[in-house]
Amino acid sequence: MNMLGMFCVRTFSGLVGFRTATCVVRPLHSFPGITVAQIDEEVAKLLELKARLGGDDGKHQFVLKTAKGTRDYNPKQMAIREKVFNTIINCFKRHGAETIDTPVFELKETLTGKYGEDSKLIYDLKDQGGELLSLRYDLTVPFARYLAMNKITNIKRYHIAKVYRRDNPAMTRGRYREFYQCDFDIAGQYDAMIPDAECLRIVHEILSELDLGDFRIKVNDRRILDGMFAVCGVPDDKFRTICSTVDKLDKMPWEDVKKEMVNEKGLSEEAAEQIGEYVSMQGGKTLAERLLQDHKISQSKQACAVVFEKSLFHYRFYFIFFCLYYGVVFDLSLARGLDYYTGVIYEALLTQAGVAQISTEAQNGATSEENVSVGSVAGGGRYDGLVGMFDPKGRKVPCVGVSIGIERIFSIMEQKAEVMENKSSCLSHG
Amino acid sequence: MNMLGMFCVRTFSGLVGFRTATCVVRPLHSFPGITVAQIDEEVAKLLELKARLGGDDGKHQFVLKTAKGTRDYNPKQMAIREKVFNTIINCFKRHGAETIDTPVFELKETLTGKYGEDSKLIYDLKDQGGELLSLRYDLTVPFARYLAMNKITNIKRYHIAKVYRRDNPAMTRGRYREFYQCDFDIAGQYDAMIPDAECLRIVHEILSELDLGDFRIKVNDRRILDGMFAVCGVPDDKFRTICSTVDKLDKMPWEDVKKEMVNEKGLSEEAAEQIGEYVSMQGGKTLAERLLQDHKISQSKQACAVVFEKSLFHYRFYFIFFCLYYGVVFDLSLARGLDYYTGVIYEALLTQAGVAQISTEAQNGATSEENVSVGSVAGGGRYDGLVGMFDPKGRKVPCVGVSIGIERIFSIMEQKAEVMENKSSCLSHG
Repeated sequence: MNMLGMFCVRTFSGLVGFRTATCVVRPLHSFPGITVAQIDEEVAKLLELKARLGGDDGKHQFVLKTAKGTRDYNPKQMAIREKVFNTIINCFKRHGAETIDTPVFELKETLTGKYGEDSKLIYDLKDQGGELLSLRYDLTVPFARYLAMNKITNIKRYHIAKVYRRDNPAMTRGRYREFYQCDFDIAGQYDAMIPDAECLRIVHEILSELDLGDFRIKVNDRRILDGMFAVCGVPDDKFRTICSTVDKLDKMPWEDVKKEMVNEKGLSEEAAEQIGEYVSMQGGKTLAERLLQDHKISQSKQACAVVFEKSLFHYRFYFIFFCLYYGVVFDLSLARGLDYYTGVIYEALLTQAGVAQISTEAQNGATSEENVSVGSVAGGGRYDGLVGMFDPKGRKVPCVGVSIGIERIFSIMEQKAEVMENKSSCLSHG
Repeated sequence: MNMLGMFCVRTFSGLVGFRTATCVVRPLHSFPGITVAQIDEEVAKLLELKARLGGDDGKHQFVLKTAKGTRDYNPKQMAIREKVFNTIINCFKRHGAETIDTPVFELKETLTGKYGEDSKLIYDLKDQGGELLSLRYDLTVPFARYLAMNKITNIKRYHIAKVYRRDNPAMTRGRYREFYQCDFDIAGQYDAMIPDAECLRIVHEILSELDLGDFRIKVNDRRILDGMFAVCGVPDDKFRTICSTVDKLDKMPWEDVKKEMVNEKGLSEEAAEQIGEYVSMQGGKTLAERLLQDHKISQSKQACAVVFEKSLFHYRFYFIFFCLYYGVVFDLSLARGLDYYTGVIYEALLTQAGVAQISTEAQNGATSEENVSVGSVAGGGRYDGLVGMFDPKGRKVPCVGVSIGIERIFSIMEQKAEVMENKSSCLSHG
């Protein structure tokens, strides 16, 4: 895209009016694979260049905007934000967590090899001499670095701060390039599933207290996914990359996910189809029983040994029963994009029709597929290997945590506040 | 330095042990003008490279650290931070301010041409396609951008957030590359000096409430400085760059400042000496009277017309009298580095001996000159032209504000907390 940018700049560097600039878009049709978002970026670049060249009246003109995918908060919005934070912090403190803070950027190498295919979305800082730096992509990797650096093996901590992803933002749906995460994590050796269940409980408490309407919590396990991949004939070295593709099921229809597996990732058609069967499965206890009786899975030594080993499965049951109480569903299509998860993974979605409607009205021209994941507001899982990646002697610290993504919640609360305001102004005028 | 970095990397890319790496420093002696800080950065780069190459045992080793000039906050430190924030926020709210938030990065162009010589300290993001971005350098320029973007002409706002400067950090003295600023600003048309005095009052209230010991507030005015420069024979186009040099008086002795003016900035020896006379002046009402009777200043049409014009001077008197009540001193050497100030400027310093001692003990090998500015904890001034730089029609919004730099305050509070803890543990063991 940079080359394309240069092409535009060279060809049109003499442009002086906006109407002339619009013709820039035409030759782009001949470039295959260019997205609307990329064209938008090029246009923004050209307009910035135009402003630098003097604009219409020869006067220096600024592009008066915030960076793509970011927003300001005005005082009213700050009041809502503070209210949401207070609810979340109170819950975290009630569960005995302390708070820490880490810098907004880390050594580039600290983030390397932690996020799999999502690594391309990391913001790097320019090399201005000195260390190579990147903006934090989440709060989990800095937390693991903090634990290893300070040799901490046991802590319950929360951290509320902004993270940065060069994603394609859909701001009307609460998706930004700069956004807050509210993280709660438990590090240390505990009885199996106890801290994992506490994380899910926290999600349930916070979403209930914020009164955002109905929500659903989906649960899966990386080891179950890996067992499923093995059973379906996915080669070991493709587990993580296929996992990344499965993770797209909340944004893309199955047909496109399958195409990516076969055409881009080189998976056999047959293996992809078998995965398709499993990932369509959702449910509670019944699904667990069905999987246990699945002849393919019971025939696969790997799956039985690694994943569906009986004692482990009992834990899983215990866990699922515990969770069902909180409306948790077991969903084999849940994969989570990040590389570092090693066990239980989960995600919470808002399901209320009203929420979907608000966002549909707010966005222009989004396809119906894009609406599917509209309500995802929390996610997390177990990552037992991450701290060991930082420790000089590779000492592991088992960790599990959850991250509340609050921009989406802000959008809903803002919408609510507006409705309330309109109502009260109607009343006072009636 | 980049070239130097490449040189080192090429020559020593085969190094495998730390003892070997230390010899890298030797050839640097032949490079003139290299500072210790630059060598430190090169060493850090080489060690990072070493780690990437495999370190001593061939195992992949991380450099387990935060980025240069940044720090983590542990739960204890967070508790102190929260306490300081609460005191500051309460004061801001008491004075009727609302809060806003802006993104951590801005379009690079938003920051261009606002900071004068300090611009070299701005962190740029890598060009990864799309817009060119920089990390915010302060909260004032984003505030001005926010006002222009939202066409706001009247607001009292506070903003507490981290800012980023590629400065040479002295972390033991509370100087970082990532640090919090607590800003309070008043935008809008008011009676002269009223909002300016409120800002000073806020500094006084906060520093008193935080109970950090004695402090001093220094005041000057950019128009007085400009008049002084004119009287001393500084060419108009050198006002801002000479101003930057005067600003270094709190870090360098006068002789070095003079050398920079003459050798680097090309000022005449005579002009520099005259500036030297003025900037040594400090005081209250007496100094103002002395300046008014100064024969050079009364002879200079420019200084009389632009700066020492009588009615303006009366305001100044009013202001100074008001401020003297709060222990404010009028100091002709105060310049403030940033380009955008247009009127009153001020700075607050902690003067208590104990504070200086703490920092002297904490740092290793710092010269006594470096200690002079140890206690600077707040600064600000009037910037009537900044919003107009963003407005498409150049409409100005008069603004004045103050920024509390709290890292220094944190260091002192942490130190205090430690002393308290030691005392109470002594008591419980005695």
